[in-house]
Amino acid sequence: MPKKFKISFIGAGNLAFRLAPELENAGHQIVEVYSRTKKNAMLLTSRLYNADIKTDLDFSRSKAEVIIIAVNDDAIEEIAKQIRVNDDLVLAHTSGSKSLEVLQFTKSENIGVLYPLQTFSKKKKVNLEEVPILLEANSIHAFLVLNDLARSLSKKTYQVDSIKRKSVHVSAVFACNFTNHLFRIAREILKKEDLPFDLLEPLIVETINKSLSLGPEKAQTGPAFREDLEILESHMEFLSENSTYAEIYRLLSQHIMDIKNS
Amino acid sequence: MPKKFKISFIGAGNLAFRLAPELENAGHQIVEVYSRTKKNAMLLTSRLYNADIKTDLDFSRSKAEVIIIAVNDDAIEEIAKQIRVNDDLVLAHTSGSKSLEVLQFTKSENIGVLYPLQTFSKKKKVNLEEVPILLEANSIHAFLVLNDLARSLSKKTYQVDSIKRKSVHVSAVFACNFTNHLFRIAREILKKEDLPFDLLEPLIVETINKSLSLGPEKAQTGPAFREDLEILESHMEFLSENSTYAEIYRLLSQHIMDIKNS
Repeated sequence: MPKKFKISFIGAGNLAFRLAPELENAGHQIVEVYSRTKKNAMLLTSRLYNADIKTDLDFSRSKAEVIIIAVNDDAIEEIAKQIRVNDDLVLAHTSGSKSLEVLQFTKSENIGVLYPLQTFSKKKKVNLEEVPILLEANSIHAFLVLNDLARSLSKKTYQVDSIKRKSVHVSAVFACNFTNHLFRIAREILKKEDLPFDLLEPLIVETINKSLSLGPEKAQTGPAFREDLEILESHMEFLSENSTYAEIYRLLSQHIMDIKNS
Repeated sequence: MPKKFKISFIGAGNLAFRLAPELENAGHQIVEVYSRTKKNAMLLTSRLYNADIKTDLDFSRSKAEVIIIAVNDDAIEEIAKQIRVNDDLVLAHTSGSKSLEVLQFTKSENIGVLYPLQTFSKKKKVNLEEVPILLEANSIHAFLVLNDLARSLSKKTYQVDSIKRKSVHVSAVFACNFTNHLFRIAREILKKEDLPFDLLEPLIVETINKSLSLGPEKAQTGPAFREDLEILESHMEFLSENSTYAEIYRLLSQHIMDIKNS
């Protein structure tokens, strides 16, 4: 039977807004919320059963057993330097790109990472149950606590050290941030001809579905994959006015051909 | 009231398998199927009400009013050179990347393009109603016929000349072919650390949903967009073993930053 914990939140942004109520639903108790922006802390506590607003980072006398740092990556180190904790407390950040070690400043003996691999917005609810949660800890105690927390939120939890977590983050940059940017380029190309981006939506949805169900290797199509040099050339000519588009087109097409023939 | 037509198909691949029965459902009549691979022509006709297998490209005495050329891009020109048609017949290809002019070899007076902007496979049914169909024709007669055909299949039809159609095709390469390739790279990066590609699925699905609903400009996130140089540098270092990955990462990140600041 997984344990229930008393939890404090540092940060009251999109992730905290999503995680904190969900942790309460799972039977845990949120006891405190700290945010640099007091208004956000008030907003979040107003959605919780019985959480206090905390106005400083001294948790040495806190009732909390776990502190979850859900702030922007940039702010984690600064918070780690200022925070005061007692020894039993488990302290975890939620970042995909920061190592466990940034929390060593805290001198806490139980530090960890609880990284939900998803993008969160205040407006839209995503189903947390299906979201992979990547865990890392410096002690067995910290790991067991974070593991209980993660399992109470999601069916998919993984123990992933900082190096592996970096590979996850880099791969997510390719699969998500860069993908969105390619959509942006597609949109610009269409806009120049007064065509709406909507035009591509059914094709995009079907392509992604195929890629996720068959795997990207089997789902690859297009002129580069067919090694249709005539079309590749005509596209390069079409793109010649924008050297960056042309360079991206050339580089990705070449790589598609190279991988196919390797 | 849109007219119903007698149609012949050249080609019996994925697209013909999808279009021909759907055109019959919409009230048109498929009278002939020609394929270089006779087995495919037989397979397709077996799914149609009353279509004959045609074994040559002489359509000068055909009952058909429209011929739809649904073959690989490479084969269109060769077919256009061999085909014989009578003057009233409307002849259309279905390619996103070939111009209308490739059909001029046929000396037909009514040529056109009917390009469904979607990827088709024999196994999976996609809802044609939502698939944009891009139309081009060299005569009013050809346009009206193709327009009636397209509207009997889909709610979304667009008149798009060959130059605009090229911009649609190029944008689709960016948004679909390249996106799939980025997924492939993400998969390889994860594989090296023994992590499954599945891990990224919820994040990918949410990212695409956001991008399609908010538009890619507003949906952009990630270290390049935040101009987080520390993380960009650590990712470049992480990727230093694979110069192509590093180059793609550098180029796309730089472009995300440039566009943001332009």
